[in-house]
Amino acid sequence: MTDTKQAQDRVLIFDTTLRDGEQSPGATMTHDEKLEIAALLDDMGVDIIEAGFPIASEGDFEAVRDIAKLAKRAVICGLARASTTDIDRAWEAVKHSPRPRIHTFIGTSPLHRGITSLDQDGMAEQIHATVTHARNLCDNVQWSPMDATRTEHDYLCRVVEIAIKAGATTINIPDTVGYTAPRESAALIAMLLERVPGADEVVFATHCHNDLGMATANALAAVDAGARQIECTINGLGERAGNTALEEVVMALRVRNDIMPYQTGIDTTKIMQASRLVAGISGFPVQFNKAIVGKNAFAHESGIHQDGMLKNAETFEIMRPTDIGLSETSLVMGKHSGRAALRAKLHDLGYDLADNQLGDVFVRFKALADRKKEVYDDDLVALVADSATNAEHDYLQVKRLRVVCGTDGPQEAELTLAIDGVDHSIDATGDGPVDAAFNAVRMLYPHEARLALYQVHAVTEGTDAQATVSVRMEEAGHIVTGQSADTDTVVASLRAYVNALNKLIVRRQKTRPAAAF
Amino acid sequence: MTDTKQAQDRVLIFDTTLRDGEQSPGATMTHDEKLEIAALLDDMGVDIIEAGFPIASEGDFEAVRDIAKLAKRAVICGLARASTTDIDRAWEAVKHSPRPRIHTFIGTSPLHRGITSLDQDGMAEQIHATVTHARNLCDNVQWSPMDATRTEHDYLCRVVEIAIKAGATTINIPDTVGYTAPRESAALIAMLLERVPGADEVVFATHCHNDLGMATANALAAVDAGARQIECTINGLGERAGNTALEEVVMALRVRNDIMPYQTGIDTTKIMQASRLVAGISGFPVQFNKAIVGKNAFAHESGIHQDGMLKNAETFEIMRPTDIGLSETSLVMGKHSGRAALRAKLHDLGYDLADNQLGDVFVRFKALADRKKEVYDDDLVALVADSATNAEHDYLQVKRLRVVCGTDGPQEAELTLAIDGVDHSIDATGDGPVDAAFNAVRMLYPHEARLALYQVHAVTEGTDAQATVSVRMEEAGHIVTGQSADTDTVVASLRAYVNALNKLIVRRQKTRPAAAF
Repeated sequence: MTDTKQAQDRVLIFDTTLRDGEQSPGATMTHDEKLEIAALLDDMGVDIIEAGFPIASEGDFEAVRDIAKLAKRAVICGLARASTTDIDRAWEAVKHSPRPRIHTFIGTSPLHRGITSLDQDGMAEQIHATVTHARNLCDNVQWSPMDATRTEHDYLCRVVEIAIKAGATTINIPDTVGYTAPRESAALIAMLLERVPGADEVVFATHCHNDLGMATANALAAVDAGARQIECTINGLGERAGNTALEEVVMALRVRNDIMPYQTGIDTTKIMQASRLVAGISGFPVQFNKAIVGKNAFAHESGIHQDGMLKNAETFEIMRPTDIGLSETSLVMGKHSGRAALRAKLHDLGYDLADNQLGDVFVRFKALADRKKEVYDDDLVALVADSATNAEHDYLQVKRLRVVCGTDGPQEAELTLAIDGVDHSIDATGDGPVDAAFNAVRMLYPHEARLALYQVHAVTEGTDAQATVSVRMEEAGHIVTGQSADTDTVVASLRAYVNALNKLIVRRQKTRPAAAF
Repeated sequence: MTDTKQAQDRVLIFDTTLRDGEQSPGATMTHDEKLEIAALLDDMGVDIIEAGFPIASEGDFEAVRDIAKLAKRAVICGLARASTTDIDRAWEAVKHSPRPRIHTFIGTSPLHRGITSLDQDGMAEQIHATVTHARNLCDNVQWSPMDATRTEHDYLCRVVEIAIKAGATTINIPDTVGYTAPRESAALIAMLLERVPGADEVVFATHCHNDLGMATANALAAVDAGARQIECTINGLGERAGNTALEEVVMALRVRNDIMPYQTGIDTTKIMQASRLVAGISGFPVQFNKAIVGKNAFAHESGIHQDGMLKNAETFEIMRPTDIGLSETSLVMGKHSGRAALRAKLHDLGYDLADNQLGDVFVRFKALADRKKEVYDDDLVALVADSATNAEHDYLQVKRLRVVCGTDGPQEAELTLAIDGVDHSIDATGDGPVDAAFNAVRMLYPHEARLALYQVHAVTEGTDAQATVSVRMEEAGHIVTGQSADTDTVVASLRAYVNALNKLIVRRQKTRPAAAF
């Protein structure tokens, strides 16, 4: 028995925000950002963290290795194609964890077999060889037949049996194209459990995509049929319409435990913090009407509440905001608040920062409190998120910016930028202060990346609110998103732009293999 | 037989963007915006448009009445509580349609019965009386037991039977709190069809909310069990986590027609246009990874496509972008393009504008082409959307703005604003150009509304891109969102702010009754 065998009512949460989520166009993350997300996932009780795809790049390898070293509770999983090179590389990264897992996959549907030009027998042999190889390295091996929902049932049963015999401990059934529907999702798992010898000795997992808006229901239907691991991401981040959203399956299992009597190990009060962190780092905003974590998810038109007819929140609410870590309080701190008060407040918000990060946040908090009368919870969350996206290991770092703008002449920016640790300064002009600042960056660090999206939003109300800026850039088909927050929109814009460039530098190092499921 | 009886494989699409969607905090729409959305819904083949809640306000009444007059194909439906006053008012509004429907409802669950202090018998009598009253006015009557999924099965069967006997032609089963799961949703419809006498003589409808992320699957499960009307909204707009998304159920039925052999009458190539229009008017952005209509829904990390191993799009795409009206072309027009070319291009994008609206868009297109080298499809879509949010009937209209900004002094704005048709001018200062412009508005039109969200995003790439600004305001618990687009962020900000104020003026007139399901 492996560590993944659980009681029948326990559903394992396998988070792939850092692998399938990060693979989403525009969601590329830096090393430090990945580590910060992993620490929170570990802390909130995710059972398995898929930390990356070690063969994809040196950066992916290092992130998986460092997450393997830092995680306190979670199993750390690395992805590998059906090749010994990939599997060896994944093992080199995950072996630093006390609970390592190798996850290897191959596309088994006719379309994918056609691409590899393997016939059914040839692919079966390769599956046997690669899973055996993985199991010889690690006693916790997950195997996935990519595009399982479009694979012939007989062949799917055959290859799942081979993988189990070769030593796979978890069998994941991906709906790679987001194609299935709940009854079909359940029937597929039920069929495998019934037909495949040894199926009762492994954990079946469900990995759904949301192309038709049914990922959550498909995952839960699979659990109903016997799957005991759900693969998901925070905010449903992922390619195209994304993956199953962790917050949706976890809260659905909790709210409807009467008809879905399964438990997860997730501390749901950390859900909002995780949602904000991933939204900030990925630059993928969460829409107002997103289930569970949208701004409006718990909001009602006040007219109804004030109507006087409705006596209790239960009438329209099936969850309490506090269940997911939304606190009632809003106004918090002022310019006289000290470092200890900030630490205590951040703890209440779910952030326990290391001393050096707290120091950085405190300096920026004081600067903010000087400019802004009232500092809200959301302001602090933005400060913390921002400090995570401006790490000391970044290749490019903003040192100083001064902008002069007005109607009469070209706007001017004086910029000092550290490039690989060395300061460079320049003056530039442009069509407005933001354009001037961006031009200065382009002069100091020439690049061909195209600005694909520029987005500003205020974190809290009022004209003195902090602005969060997202900048999306594209270069040679690669897309990245940078983000930053400041009361000065121009400063936030510059830092977001530089954050995006840093991600692009990370992204360039990847030789992205075809591993999308 | 009524006009709603259909062949067994036809599923009616009932769109409630203008009623349940507009009820979402922040999504309040002006009269002209509602009419524009209704015209597009009618054009794209929506079977029934729920145009509003006529008793809620004079504005709601007028919108339903005017939509009843303009719709060419759709049934026009007005909402009413279980009172003859409400029902009479709804009839006064919808009777102008050749295909009117009255939709009346009451909360039947123990929680809702408790609020009304009616016992089971008392509520049954009220249902009989009000449905009878509605049917005496209109031969097309829909009845909804609000919070049906939390109503005792026996009582639900009893009241549905009463409504059918009293003349209801459609019975809608709302999952008011977004609580159900697919198997349960299907079982509820199946039970009603089996147990309620006369159930085979009416159309059953499913009305789901997305609180647990399962609205689409729940609606389709209900269809599988015999429901033949899906209630939904564009982009899933609606209170809390919103309603079932029209685009998701329609595309799921199309893509998975093999296992869900039902037809809708929707022209799917208008889906993107409808999504953009509703996102623009409501100020509710669509997240990148939203199913069907998100920016990333059809996007792949290019590395994969370029990998050379993957030969066809079918490998990862179950729909084509053109299925929902996303065109391949992007670069379109320049400063030398004429009015006829603009008309033709807008037609390709799905917009057939009246001459006066085309004139307005053309003037703004030329101004844009002067400032911007390349005008993209998305720029044109923004222009059209913007012209819809600045209509001649608005109470407040921006006439002229001049802003002087610089580092040395306070920023100054000179503003001319028409208030109820009369021009007023003023000079104001502020902490930046946007603040100065907003202060000028506040001086000319004093109000207590609080700025709750300020958001800017670029429509297309490049630093000369048009900026779309969203402004969310709150007053006495009411929330509205205004939006505008311009290459000048300050102008766009001002127009968005004034658009929000116009919506607030509309919103103030409403005495919002407790009608949320």
